[in-house]
Amino acid sequence: MKLLEDRIRKNGVIQEGNVLKVDSFLNHQMDIDLINEIGKEFFRRFSDAGVSKILTIEASGIGIACIAAQYFHVPVVFAKKNKTKNIAGDVFTAKVESFTHGKTYDIMVSRQFLGPKDRILLIDDFLANGKALEGLANIVQESGAFLAGAGIVIEKGFQPGGRLLRERGIRLESLAVVESMDEKAGELIFRQDPWDTL
Amino acid sequence: MKLLEDRIRKNGVIQEGNVLKVDSFLNHQMDIDLINEIGKEFFRRFSDAGVSKILTIEASGIGIACIAAQYFHVPVVFAKKNKTKNIAGDVFTAKVESFTHGKTYDIMVSRQFLGPKDRILLIDDFLANGKALEGLANIVQESGAFLAGAGIVIEKGFQPGGRLLRERGIRLESLAVVESMDEKAGELIFRQDPWDTL
Repeated sequence: MKLLEDRIRKNGVIQEGNVLKVDSFLNHQMDIDLINEIGKEFFRRFSDAGVSKILTIEASGIGIACIAAQYFHVPVVFAKKNKTKNIAGDVFTAKVESFTHGKTYDIMVSRQFLGPKDRILLIDDFLANGKALEGLANIVQESGAFLAGAGIVIEKGFQPGGRLLRERGIRLESLAVVESMDEKAGELIFRQDPWDTL
Repeated sequence: MKLLEDRIRKNGVIQEGNVLKVDSFLNHQMDIDLINEIGKEFFRRFSDAGVSKILTIEASGIGIACIAAQYFHVPVVFAKKNKTKNIAGDVFTAKVESFTHGKTYDIMVSRQFLGPKDRILLIDDFLANGKALEGLANIVQESGAFLAGAGIVIEKGFQPGGRLLRERGIRLESLAVVESMDEKAGELIFRQDPWDTL
């Protein structure tokens, strides 16, 4: 997605350890006009998928999922990371290893919001090692729902998550795939996007 | 807001300990059509406030804030609850005591996204003891930004948060204020809403 790639080049900050900071427009401060275009683009790519519900994970996926859901006219469910008093015991859970936070945590979705009649689109802001998306996919599988696809805003193509999830047969669309980053030169190379010419 | 009160009566679940579960449409599964109406209503109530940015807190405030921001045409910033590698050291912080989770945590906002030129609207899903909103208001104050107002979806009017924040001079609008709940009778009483007749 050209608009997104341009924005990453302009406002993304490459840091040591292959960190790409996009917190000025995507995952701390959020540029709602840009996210609206992202939502439209997810709809363009998945309009044929018969999506009945969007599933995301707190925190930074939620806003993107909600804006996208306006185009699909479906509800959003977000997986929670910590057990609180407000979630009943009857939940689907999965374990997720986080590289950003350096720990493993449980994610959970109440059983009443996912079931065999659902066709689920997963949405998240980032895909690197793919552990969060894998956890969401496992929850969808456990619920008996159909996994219609997964939409990611930025994929780090040099980390294994995207490949592993595609090999698992998941219809995965990333709006920008970073092939490589060079911290010193401040250079970003994106994978060619077939949707840009459609 | 009549539409919201009706929905709370229909799908809200009253539980022991004054817990009102609205996770089928507001803070776990999200009814995007309803949240769109909520966003419009926040705009109706704060359209004169010159809002330049919306500030919320992860996780359940984010989706509501993003949908509302489409009407204000402003960015959203969400305060984070845990320090991650992706937030630089230069942050505004506040301590928040959580009754739901039974612990105290830090919230933080990067200093680059709040400053004296901003006119901030706070948005969150719930207000009970008001600790999260108080933390956000403290961060706004520390940043030198102007606190233009606070929009809450559901306020528990029988808990002290709303009164304390209004006494502090904050222009606080709650779209539904629960005056009392009766778990056994399944009964909810809402405070009369002056905006319903405007």
